[in-house]
Amino acid sequence: MRYLIKFSYDGSNYCGYQVQPGLHTIQEKLEMAATKINNDIKTNVVSTGRTDKGVHALSQYAHLDIDVMITPYKLKRAMNSNLPDDIHVINAWRVRDDFHARFNVVKKEYHYVLNTGEYNPIERNYAYQYNYKLNIDKMNEAIKYFVGKHDFRAFVTENENKENCVRTIEDAYIEKDISNPEKYVFKFIGDGFLRYQVRNMVGLLFKVGQEKIEPSTVKEILESKSRKKNGVTAPSEGLYLVNVVYSNLDDFIIKE
Amino acid sequence: MRYLIKFSYDGSNYCGYQVQPGLHTIQEKLEMAATKINNDIKTNVVSTGRTDKGVHALSQYAHLDIDVMITPYKLKRAMNSNLPDDIHVINAWRVRDDFHARFNVVKKEYHYVLNTGEYNPIERNYAYQYNYKLNIDKMNEAIKYFVGKHDFRAFVTENENKENCVRTIEDAYIEKDISNPEKYVFKFIGDGFLRYQVRNMVGLLFKVGQEKIEPSTVKEILESKSRKKNGVTAPSEGLYLVNVVYSNLDDFIIKE
Repeated sequence: MRYLIKFSYDGSNYCGYQVQPGLHTIQEKLEMAATKINNDIKTNVVSTGRTDKGVHALSQYAHLDIDVMITPYKLKRAMNSNLPDDIHVINAWRVRDDFHARFNVVKKEYHYVLNTGEYNPIERNYAYQYNYKLNIDKMNEAIKYFVGKHDFRAFVTENENKENCVRTIEDAYIEKDISNPEKYVFKFIGDGFLRYQVRNMVGLLFKVGQEKIEPSTVKEILESKSRKKNGVTAPSEGLYLVNVVYSNLDDFIIKE
Repeated sequence: MRYLIKFSYDGSNYCGYQVQPGLHTIQEKLEMAATKINNDIKTNVVSTGRTDKGVHALSQYAHLDIDVMITPYKLKRAMNSNLPDDIHVINAWRVRDDFHARFNVVKKEYHYVLNTGEYNPIERNYAYQYNYKLNIDKMNEAIKYFVGKHDFRAFVTENENKENCVRTIEDAYIEKDISNPEKYVFKFIGDGFLRYQVRNMVGLLFKVGQEKIEPSTVKEILESKSRKKNGVTAPSEGLYLVNVVYSNLDDFIIKE
């Protein structure tokens, strides 16, 4: 039987989402828990996509196939009791076998958190700390160039720039944190994001904020489809996957 | 020369503030950094008071005597470059030799953070997670009994109840977190707090919220001056020292 799980994690202590031999990853921990529940039958956990080392998720999804009879509620409970306290299953559903956690995604939202105020040790793994001058207005102007359907080849790492890099960003904007006016959240909503794309977009926005380049240069770099002279990747600790939307999810969910 | 430092820390990885042989503490790290700056002369760091294992501080103060000539700004910088990233010096001042970080305090503020919403792995060390029914209105009614000058003997651990336990709480109330309506912050402002006092007061408020006792029972327990039948201590991860106020601090600060 196929299940869909919604989960969150603190990426600080992991080498990213995807299984890598000899390293601790989110997927490894999820699969260990699922395998245990599935009577020790090796169980794959297929997520919406990977996140990199140090990146967090407030709302990530994955599907998995379990042979034992278990209600979604009990699966959630059993997963959580077998997971470390920095990974948490929020919800679980029975889904049709043709549901796929990666292929059925229609929308994802990423946030990038920037702290320009005093360094806070409690948030050292949860925000990018930057205490130099930044022109946020210009960054807000520049971020708009990312909105729309574009070939984002200029924002992927070079060894991966052969695949299809066309993605649509529905909205992108910078908001002040409601509880801390010295914190800013960069929000990106789109149909999908390439590896490092968000951190590379944010990295370029920093160049704009530092007034090293004009906002319009972002448009030029985007249209150049080349990563050359554009190699700024914002640190991972500020990045969060905050939402994933599926097409017609209700049609795939099997009610008990 | 005497200096005053203002600092913050994430208490998660420490056995409290105060030096304990063989254990990692905040004071140990501060004194190691100060001693290094002070040409390896063993340097004591005298704080406003200790915090316990797992308790955080957003604004804590301490004084220390340094023999080498150093500006407050350079002391701050040197401390931070010698401290781990979960302890941070926010500011430093030169002060008169008769200033004392503990004795000159007139006011302290503690917050206790409660999350009644979905467990968030990112906040696992920074809020107390509670997902059962709580009557917040009754807790808000009960917390008012702590306001005023009282003998708080009923809220200290038994082996310490011989000292003077009279303290004045200027204000105490519960607020909803501005950015998350399922999070509550219990705020306590007073002239001083006994060891475990805040966590023991919050622990009793939980009994009220669970409707095991009436709000008025808090008054009775306070007046009983006895810890018997009252032994609930709220977990440390929700507790923060957020502010310390000194009397006439400006008179003690030596301007450069």
